[in-house]
Amino acid sequence: MQRSLALTAVVCARTARALLQRPAPLRHSVKMASTTTLYDPTPFYAAAQPPETKDFCMQQTMVRVKDPATSLKFYIETLGFQLVMFRDFPQWGFSVYFVAHGLTGPVPADEDARWDFCMRTPGCIELTWNHGSEKSDGAVYNTGNADATGTKDGEAVKGGFGHLGITVPDVYEACERFKKLGCTFTKTPNSGGMKGLAFVKDPDGYLIEVLPQGPMITKPLDCDGVAAEGGDGYKDNSKA
Amino acid sequence: MQRSLALTAVVCARTARALLQRPAPLRHSVKMASTTTLYDPTPFYAAAQPPETKDFCMQQTMVRVKDPATSLKFYIETLGFQLVMFRDFPQWGFSVYFVAHGLTGPVPADEDARWDFCMRTPGCIELTWNHGSEKSDGAVYNTGNADATGTKDGEAVKGGFGHLGITVPDVYEACERFKKLGCTFTKTPNSGGMKGLAFVKDPDGYLIEVLPQGPMITKPLDCDGVAAEGGDGYKDNSKA
Repeated sequence: MQRSLALTAVVCARTARALLQRPAPLRHSVKMASTTTLYDPTPFYAAAQPPETKDFCMQQTMVRVKDPATSLKFYIETLGFQLVMFRDFPQWGFSVYFVAHGLTGPVPADEDARWDFCMRTPGCIELTWNHGSEKSDGAVYNTGNADATGTKDGEAVKGGFGHLGITVPDVYEACERFKKLGCTFTKTPNSGGMKGLAFVKDPDGYLIEVLPQGPMITKPLDCDGVAAEGGDGYKDNSKA
Repeated sequence: MQRSLALTAVVCARTARALLQRPAPLRHSVKMASTTTLYDPTPFYAAAQPPETKDFCMQQTMVRVKDPATSLKFYIETLGFQLVMFRDFPQWGFSVYFVAHGLTGPVPADEDARWDFCMRTPGCIELTWNHGSEKSDGAVYNTGNADATGTKDGEAVKGGFGHLGITVPDVYEACERFKKLGCTFTKTPNSGGMKGLAFVKDPDGYLIEVLPQGPMITKPLDCDGVAAEGGDGYKDNSKA
């Protein structure tokens, strides 16, 4: 599949994605070589939402950060999040900072209104700082995937958490900017098997996936100078 | 603080929250007993979003699940998420299922339109199934916090990932329903130090926080029969 994209300047998005998605979603009856039977969730598309849940909102993902100053600078100045609310709990030794994209209006100045506003904003990240962690040497927290940070034996963990993911109008342009701002990439858009998406690390090492808001396109060169036909393989490290 | 709420049927929400938040956000110059200086992010409220990032969208949080049938049933039927998109990648041995709240319209039937729709939906959860994991005995993945699952030495990890969090119109009503549906709670609304919020576990053990969309209220009894003045302490288990 990747070879077919190699020499094309900007591959027709729909074609590229159709290739990427191939084989098309298979049905329950299809047996895999590994004897795994694919699960077909198609009936859920037609499922009525339980009426009691109709106003529920996926409001937050909480991750702990070593140093809030560094993390907020990254999420706000590099990734374009906005600060929605913060709270200090000195009696319990932690503080939380909510950041989000796509706010429906200005953050209210009134504390109560700000709380309500935050609790109705989908997709916030709750950055949690346990006071004192900023004084630690090196990385503090296990970041999911096959990370060994935060273990007693130094061995990689079979992590469930994978990444946070943002979508952007143009992955290549966004990554050029991230590169200029000094981001660490674990995958530039043209490296690995899936072209047109990237992974950068946040200051604690959490992975941030960068995906397009529209069709998945491939450009001839990415921010690291990797050609569409080139790039080292990107390995999912989830199988510790 | 909790004692002051104990005998009140439904505590005035603003008062309760004001108490909960006390002390009010402290400023940079305030020194903690532990010598930690609180970080004051207030200037970020006034920060202009970098223009290149204005359309960025916090679109996804990816977590691995052992069995997609079980997980999708939980997220959709219990938590009220809707299936937005799924993709099978048998060549790479995994499938992904995107679920979200608050869709702006029906999920498009057309595959390309569905992709675009999904990539513009904030706060999706990307449930990732590595084919074959469903055949494992017991829990497969480390779920963050101080979990020992997925380690080689069986010791708790200093996990960075904390939880996903949903907001609901009424935490107590939502939890009554969750209880009837057989959810496992790690904190019912009246247990622990923070009244009016709860934590349930998803099928893999990931924590789901349940918070109100409006003011934080306390009711005299919760779904587990715990009185507002009662309840065992809920300990943050992040400090492995």
